Amino acid sequence: MKSFNYYQPTRLLFGSGRRAEAGAAAREMADSTLLVVDPMLLRVAADKVEDVTRALEKAGVRTVMFSDVVPNPTLDAIQRGAEVAKAENVKSVIGMGGGSAIDTAKAIAVAATHPGTAWDYLYFKDKPTDATLPIMAINTTSGTGTQTSKVSVFTNTEENCKSAMWNDHLLCKVAIIDPELMVSVPVRVTAATGFDIFTHTFESYINTGSSEAVDAIALDAIARVIRSLPVAITNGSNLSAREDLAWADTLAGQCLANVGTTLPHAAGQPISGHFPKVSHGESLAVIYPAFAAFTWRGAVAKFAKVARMFNPALSAASDEVAAQNFELEIERFLKLIGLYCRLDDFGITPDDIPPILVHAMEFPDSQGNPVVPTEEDMRSIYMTSFRAA
Amino acid sequence: MKSFNYYQPTRLLFGSGRRAEAGAAAREMADSTLLVVDPMLLRVAADKVEDVTRALEKAGVRTVMFSDVVPNPTLDAIQRGAEVAKAENVKSVIGMGGGSAIDTAKAIAVAATHPGTAWDYLYFKDKPTDATLPIMAINTTSGTGTQTSKVSVFTNTEENCKSAMWNDHLLCKVAIIDPELMVSVPVRVTAATGFDIFTHTFESYINTGSSEAVDAIALDAIARVIRSLPVAITNGSNLSAREDLAWADTLAGQCLANVGTTLPHAAGQPISGHFPKVSHGESLAVIYPAFAAFTWRGAVAKFAKVARMFNPALSAASDEVAAQNFELEIERFLKLIGLYCRLDDFGITPDDIPPILVHAMEFPDSQGNPVVPTEEDMRSIYMTSFRAA
Ligand SMILES: [Fe+2]
Ligand SMILES: [Fe+2]
Repeated sequence: MKSFNYYQPTRLLFGSGRRAEAGAAAREMADSTLLVVDPMLLRVAADKVEDVTRALEKAGVRTVMFSDVVPNPTLDAIQRGAEVAKAENVKSVIGMGGGSAIDTAKAIAVAATHPGTAWDYLYFKDKPTDATLPIMAINTTSGTGTQTSKVSVFTNTEENCKSAMWNDHLLCKVAIIDPELMVSVPVRVTAATGFDIFTHTFESYINTGSSEAVDAIALDAIARVIRSLPVAITNGSNLSAREDLAWADTLAGQCLANVGTTLPHAAGQPISGHFPKVSHGESLAVIYPAFAAFTWRGAVAKFAKVARMFNPALSAASDEVAAQNFELEIERFLKLIGLYCRLDDFGITPDDIPPILVHAMEFPDSQGNPVVPTEEDMRSIYMTSFRAA
Repeated sequence: MKSFNYYQPTRLLFGSGRRAEAGAAAREMADSTLLVVDPMLLRVAADKVEDVTRALEKAGVRTVMFSDVVPNPTLDAIQRGAEVAKAENVKSVIGMGGGSAIDTAKAIAVAATHPGTAWDYLYFKDKPTDATLPIMAINTTSGTGTQTSKVSVFTNTEENCKSAMWNDHLLCKVAIIDPELMVSVPVRVTAATGFDIFTHTFESYINTGSSEAVDAIALDAIARVIRSLPVAITNGSNLSAREDLAWADTLAGQCLANVGTTLPHAAGQPISGHFPKVSHGESLAVIYPAFAAFTWRGAVAKFAKVARMFNPALSAASDEVAAQNFELEIERFLKLIGLYCRLDDFGITPDDIPPILVHAMEFPDSQGNPVVPTEEDMRSIYMTSFRAA
């Protein structure tokens, strides 16, 4: 058995309706907070935000609302939030919304308490200190796993560069995972974010830096996505499917915090970077079949195991055959959830690949892939992801 | 899906040889420590203790050794340790050894920083505060799961009473789980403590207060015990079996911290209380068949699932049949590891049962059993645990 570390200190409060407990949980962190809320949420689910503000008020937590949150968090918005946090002298931060609101809250927790800006604390620069404000997440989507991961992704628009903080101080003190907040997520977003959950767990599972601590929770999460994502697609208000996905996403965050993603995230992120209308989940879906064909030989037993979770009939097949069939099974699953796509579908042409490829090779994620791609391998993965001529 | 909480903030360093990292990890907690060591360990594995003291010295952690540890920790020994900790003004505590050394260290962390004695902070009395010293565990046995649980069990000899602290402050900051420290555990102890791991996970799994967060790790741990305990019994120095058990035990501690045990622990603990020569694992082994016969109807699917893990041939049987067969499977497994026993084997007679029964009914654990026993049920479980006349 390989050596490994495992660390996941977030106190998890899971269950429908538990947003009502935000007050007591926040009071444990501090007596004041910056509530970072997705402005869209204020429009479409004001009552649910109110459930939280009322709970905070009742618990005596002085609350300053900050809703200047943008879909792909920008450094500017983060710094504006940090100024508010400093001016109002709040002692904690709560992020309520999707990944953007929570990642903004995490970055504010650092920016409000450290010299310079959040950009000075990217994963390869200075490390944030214990001064980082305690963070609570109340997530309203399932997909990024940010409620249990130690990452915050944001963009420096001046430098036209998207990067991330990655540090133990960005692990939330508390996460409230309330599946009732997720029933109104639209179908296409459910598909894309639900598939993202699958990728976080599967890539952590096959990662050469994986650990037995993560394998068990990764497989548990994968089983939940396979059984419940198609249900949530068919009927978004099926609460038990939402619950299953919400817990799978929370486990996926634990996988991310302790292992991490591989080739598909390296290949997918620059697609969205160059073509912002391609969602993160779509950028992964478009790459997965080619990634599978390229990688399965490097982790036969694990590809076989998950292929059989998609299709139990593969139990009768050898590991080799089952692993090779992973590609077919993932295509079937993507079709089932309406997410099967090719690069052509987004108006991307082979001429667009060279600059995307340059960025893909800069991501460290591929180093953990069971087969580490050369630039030529990666180019070929992109080219295979177009519709056959 | 039921609501649940999950919290397990211990930083886990798992792997053979990792005791060498004790210095750096301790330095993260504080610059001074009380190293609470099992005196037996100092005799039989002085070199391994030295690996730790050398690492602490190298990391600049001022270390005060305390080895006044007794097999069933007593309040007296804990208070002596607390006096040393106060006199030497250490800022952290490390427990190295089996459950006794670590539980002693945990209790000292409270006693050295709070008015009164550790006895004033039992689970139903005052709550320890943030003043509790940070705790590190370096466990040398697999069984109690104390490296990840929030319990410390000790005895007040004056009041002739064994009780426990149970609090989040008793969750270790760091646990080093180094399976190399476990290869010299003798066969009988390996069997009894290995079976204890099984019981912690199985009872958390069937507990009516169980959660889906715990189910997955419980099943992972159960699979490890089933495959590796018989190997460790046959060959104690098989490192991969020790690793499997060490990780199963760590997961079991997480189960204990978030759910907890049921009827067998309520029934077993007073047996050891009245007959101290009966080890904790033996007290559980003797009760398990009767407990299974009494309980399986209350959790058919879960008993069936684990029965099939013991014996895959039960896959063909109905859930009812598989669940009912759990009793037979557990008997087979206990025989396989040499732990099958009846109350008669320890010189216990039916006349000894009434006072044991009184204590058993005082334990809260049975309230989470899928079938809550009346006093008459419990009496009958004890009586069925004698050899047939
Ligand atoms: Fe992702
Ligand atoms: Fe136990």
